[in-house]
Amino acid sequence: MDGVIADVYAVFFKNHYADFGELLSAEDVCGKKESEAFPNCRKYVFSNGFFRQAPVMAGSEAILKKLNDKYKLFIVSAAMEFPQSLAEKQSWLNEHFPFIRWEQMVFCGSKEIINADIMIDDQFRNLDYFTGHTILFTQPHNKLAENGRHQRVESWSDIEKILLP
Amino acid sequence: MDGVIADVYAVFFKNHYADFGELLSAEDVCGKKESEAFPNCRKYVFSNGFFRQAPVMAGSEAILKKLNDKYKLFIVSAAMEFPQSLAEKQSWLNEHFPFIRWEQMVFCGSKEIINADIMIDDQFRNLDYFTGHTILFTQPHNKLAENGRHQRVESWSDIEKILLP
Repeated sequence: MDGVIADVYAVFFKNHYADFGELLSAEDVCGKKESEAFPNCRKYVFSNGFFRQAPVMAGSEAILKKLNDKYKLFIVSAAMEFPQSLAEKQSWLNEHFPFIRWEQMVFCGSKEIINADIMIDDQFRNLDYFTGHTILFTQPHNKLAENGRHQRVESWSDIEKILLP
Repeated sequence: MDGVIADVYAVFFKNHYADFGELLSAEDVCGKKESEAFPNCRKYVFSNGFFRQAPVMAGSEAILKKLNDKYKLFIVSAAMEFPQSLAEKQSWLNEHFPFIRWEQMVFCGSKEIINADIMIDDQFRNLDYFTGHTILFTQPHNKLAENGRHQRVESWSDIEKILLP
């Protein structure tokens, strides 16, 4: 979810501006971990409403709908670290992606227990475990890293080209 | 969780008694689906507090602790159907099984996405997908069913004998 279909950086920028009066851009935080880029990062992600207010990632709605028609789709979110996020994330999915049924949702801690053929994620800690086809969704924190064996995409349009040719 | 470490039948019996003044036992509902045994079943499982108040299954605490020391343990609960249950289930686990970290918790819809070596469950719909070692935990709803390829256990003591010989 976060960093793939949920644009959490938009919420980081908003919260950082509220705390410090500094309007950061994706360029400003490029190559930095979220915790380095935003000194109050932990306060934000444990706050009520942080995940619920995230905008939908540009282009994700239409393409995820098409993926859902062609593939057996699951939304797997490493949500367990943030207890307040569980209800918010389910509510967010129901609002923005109403075609995704509860049967297709997974909230976990570690993603190493997930068995699938393709994983789209922005975090190496999730992709590195996975033995199937791994797609690294570019986000500021991973932008300067070597993508290694993972296929890097810059946008949902790139995902469409790969998975819906 | 439900029917393996969380004794949801205890809560069903209590709610059914409150609604109908009828005190049922495990024998009374043996061989019946939960929805057949308890006419108001759906009302109960969608109620706030239903999952939070479930007693811990007899014997599960000490043995799960030992399993956690020997195995890489995950608690996988098909919780997504019941949105109100997500926070309750995490809170319940934190209270009763404090040695289980958030990294080990998975709340899903379908368990077919789960990759592991051993699954302990009371529902055929979860075990039948699973290609590893499957252990069927006896509960009233499955007690009269053929266990098929699954290894049936009657108690946590049985699990201890199999997995902690």
